[in-house]
Amino acid sequence: MKNFISVHDAHDINALVHKALAYKADPLRDKALGANKRIGLIFLNPSMRTRLSTQIAAANLGMEAIVFNVGQEGWTFEFEDEAIMSGNTVEHVKDAAPILGRYFDVLGIRTFPSLQNKADDYSELYIKQFIKYAGVPVVSLESATLHPLQSLTDIITITETFKEHRRPKIVLTWAPHVKALPQCVANSFAQWINAWGHADFVITHPEDYELDPAFTKGAAITHDQDYALRDADFVYVKNWSTYADYGRIYCNDPEWMLTTEKLLNTNHAKVMHCLPVRRNVELSDEVLDSFNSIVTQQASNRTWAAQAVLSELLANVKK
Amino acid sequence: MKNFISVHDAHDINALVHKALAYKADPLRDKALGANKRIGLIFLNPSMRTRLSTQIAAANLGMEAIVFNVGQEGWTFEFEDEAIMSGNTVEHVKDAAPILGRYFDVLGIRTFPSLQNKADDYSELYIKQFIKYAGVPVVSLESATLHPLQSLTDIITITETFKEHRRPKIVLTWAPHVKALPQCVANSFAQWINAWGHADFVITHPEDYELDPAFTKGAAITHDQDYALRDADFVYVKNWSTYADYGRIYCNDPEWMLTTEKLLNTNHAKVMHCLPVRRNVELSDEVLDSFNSIVTQQASNRTWAAQAVLSELLANVKK
Amino acid sequence: MKNFISVHDAHDINALVHKALAYKADPLRDKALGANKRIGLIFLNPSMRTRLSTQIAAANLGMEAIVFNVGQEGWTFEFEDEAIMSGNTVEHVKDAAPILGRYFDVLGIRTFPSLQNKADDYSELYIKQFIKYAGVPVVSLESATLHPLQSLTDIITITETFKEHRRPKIVLTWAPHVKALPQCVANSFAQWINAWGHADFVITHPEDYELDPAFTKGAAITHDQDYALRDADFVYVKNWSTYADYGRIYCNDPEWMLTTEKLLNTNHAKVMHCLPVRRNVELSDEVLDSFNSIVTQQASNRTWAAQAVLSELLANVKK
Repeated sequence: MKNFISVHDAHDINALVHKALAYKADPLRDKALGANKRIGLIFLNPSMRTRLSTQIAAANLGMEAIVFNVGQEGWTFEFEDEAIMSGNTVEHVKDAAPILGRYFDVLGIRTFPSLQNKADDYSELYIKQFIKYAGVPVVSLESATLHPLQSLTDIITITETFKEHRRPKIVLTWAPHVKALPQCVANSFAQWINAWGHADFVITHPEDYELDPAFTKGAAITHDQDYALRDADFVYVKNWSTYADYGRIYCNDPEWMLTTEKLLNTNHAKVMHCLPVRRNVELSDEVLDSFNSIVTQQASNRTWAAQAVLSELLANVKK
Repeated sequence: MKNFISVHDAHDINALVHKALAYKADPLRDKALGANKRIGLIFLNPSMRTRLSTQIAAANLGMEAIVFNVGQEGWTFEFEDEAIMSGNTVEHVKDAAPILGRYFDVLGIRTFPSLQNKADDYSELYIKQFIKYAGVPVVSLESATLHPLQSLTDIITITETFKEHRRPKIVLTWAPHVKALPQCVANSFAQWINAWGHADFVITHPEDYELDPAFTKGAAITHDQDYALRDADFVYVKNWSTYADYGRIYCNDPEWMLTTEKLLNTNHAKVMHCLPVRRNVELSDEVLDSFNSIVTQQASNRTWAAQAVLSELLANVKK
Repeated sequence: MKNFISVHDAHDINALVHKALAYKADPLRDKALGANKRIGLIFLNPSMRTRLSTQIAAANLGMEAIVFNVGQEGWTFEFEDEAIMSGNTVEHVKDAAPILGRYFDVLGIRTFPSLQNKADDYSELYIKQFIKYAGVPVVSLESATLHPLQSLTDIITITETFKEHRRPKIVLTWAPHVKALPQCVANSFAQWINAWGHADFVITHPEDYELDPAFTKGAAITHDQDYALRDADFVYVKNWSTYADYGRIYCNDPEWMLTTEKLLNTNHAKVMHCLPVRRNVELSDEVLDSFNSIVTQQASNRTWAAQAVLSELLANVKK
């Protein structure tokens, strides 16, 4: 694995899942793998689970992790080629990335979309510029349009939870929120579940909330949440802002909040969410505090997903 | 020790003090105790001494410490049960704490009071919610009403300083300040000295600055600072805002600042302060720069207090 | 080496350079030197390269490095003696530094100038107060007027790049910028190159941008950039604000930006910059992206400079 920014970097999803589960069973089994190797965790945006789980994953592999919060500890980067830097950006990624690539053996980058300009965000300029100039493996800690460590975690969690000899029915359902959020988690979940191919996959959302077909292709898509939820084994709840007319909130209809009543319709579905979750806005207390919810298990699996990915990337690190 | 949030978690104060002094004599004596264990140091408010000393204490025990500044690096937590999270809080402690409890073997939490609502602050909702939901031992890095690591440090410092075969006279004196400060350090010092029971303990402050009797019960209380200071062996200087009419500054009388002249009245008293201290407001330069001041020794003992507490908590960590 | 705040702390610059290059060849050659030693990296101002390279240098020596961002994680320090602290400063360096000196074996301090008051900045009050009160070796991570780790890096980079048996011609040229910047890097580079004595050294800048002669004495100084660049082997590009009429921007003349055309005049000069650099303001893309630019090599040498200095300071650390 050269970098890890989308499902295309995972040559065998199930092998990666099983590697992660092996780390869950024995976190220190590869304690020597990362000896004298360093990962720089570069945050252009805030993070809790991703940062902590990746730090812990690195430590489990014997790597040193150094966190750098660009906004608080440093200054604003420039990403546009040929920019005349007379404004507020202080350092060009062309200059910063090669140096970070000298200091670190692996780089993790978190960078959110602006939600102002679809073409810019969907070009993934920021993380691609890091990859272009760093010269070391780059792992996405969530980028403008995707969150692959989250999606790998999600499949790990589904795999360890679902033990029947049939394809699970997995539903990704839009949920209300008070802010315009990126499409990353939804895009990435769709991309991974489609690529995985071991599930019946349905996406449901209000009209006008269609995601980029590049990620959803292969899933059944419906605006009828009740219909979608029928017999579901897993319900993944997530808000996202509009994709077509980019970055807007049209419908913030509380009717879309997942409730216990709606779950009656499912096959005792397990409820997933990447967190943080707005309680009683996206998901009711009742659902989150029920046995249906596996959000804590899901979030704790972030460590093993990161550890599996880092162990793959380490194989590509120069001595 | 299951958690460490007040004196009630210290079954034998003197044993804890002597454990701390043993670490001071030989910091690395238990270097293997925390191997492959992690502590998450979660700061909802700023910290210097507490953060650094706890990080060092953990390292001395071979534990990995990871600092997370919630405000700068993450987002605002919600603590109220059943909140409809359509406002500014991004994640409920019910969701964050269990995950932190999966990532870490021990959690340290710093959370200041609002000083707006006494009932809320004195319920210690924030740290209690962490304890309720984290599922791992929690150590207070200062909470809304108490600062037990500071108070343990204070008794360590008194113990190593006072070598006479009698009870020392210890005075806690209110000092002027420019801001409304929490009552934590004063409450906690009173609680610990009272529970310790090896001193004659006097608290002195202006009228209207009475502390919660739940903590001060057992101490002599007077509004006459001169009288209180007479023959004192230790003078602990600290500002706090009002408790009864909550969180106010009534009296900011410079007369209450401790000076060298006032110390003449004492038994060559040692002067203590938890720091940070406003020089020439709370305490004169003359006092702080004199041989009477033991504030640096006191602050440096923070490491050993934290190390003693962490070593006790580690005994309760699941394998 | 007792502290490292200027060239005067380097008794033998070439020995230090060769020590750094030995670390570059074998980073872990002194892995045991810093065992059970801790460095506190205290940032009163932001940093990327200095922070990361020093953290890595410490780790290479087996030391533990703890970063503390005073502004974000703590509170504002007071540096004036006898201050009545009724304003915005929360803790006096007289109280903070001795405690940091108890917690850490070595302290690194970054503190920028105000650019408001020349006498204050040039007295180097802040870092000198840390040295006075900390009681442990202090390394400058850039102070009000100097940046010695950068200058050592610069000489390391020149040494490993220039292999001819003659003195290189080194030109320090002022460059345009959009903000008033400190004189630190320029002062320090001049101080080190002059003390080193192995180069023909020319400084060129617009009228009114004269640096403090205390640092430049020994260099040829001219306002004619073209004349200065003639036959240069190294061109160090840097903006600084005025020194005489302190902290101003008089001339922001784009004509001073270094371009490929100007380099034709040189002896295939290598181009250096401490970074961050404002592209197409200080230096053209064309120059920075050319083979002439050695800025990445230069920045990556920061690690080895820091490692050489820390190894010298460790010799002075009390057991």
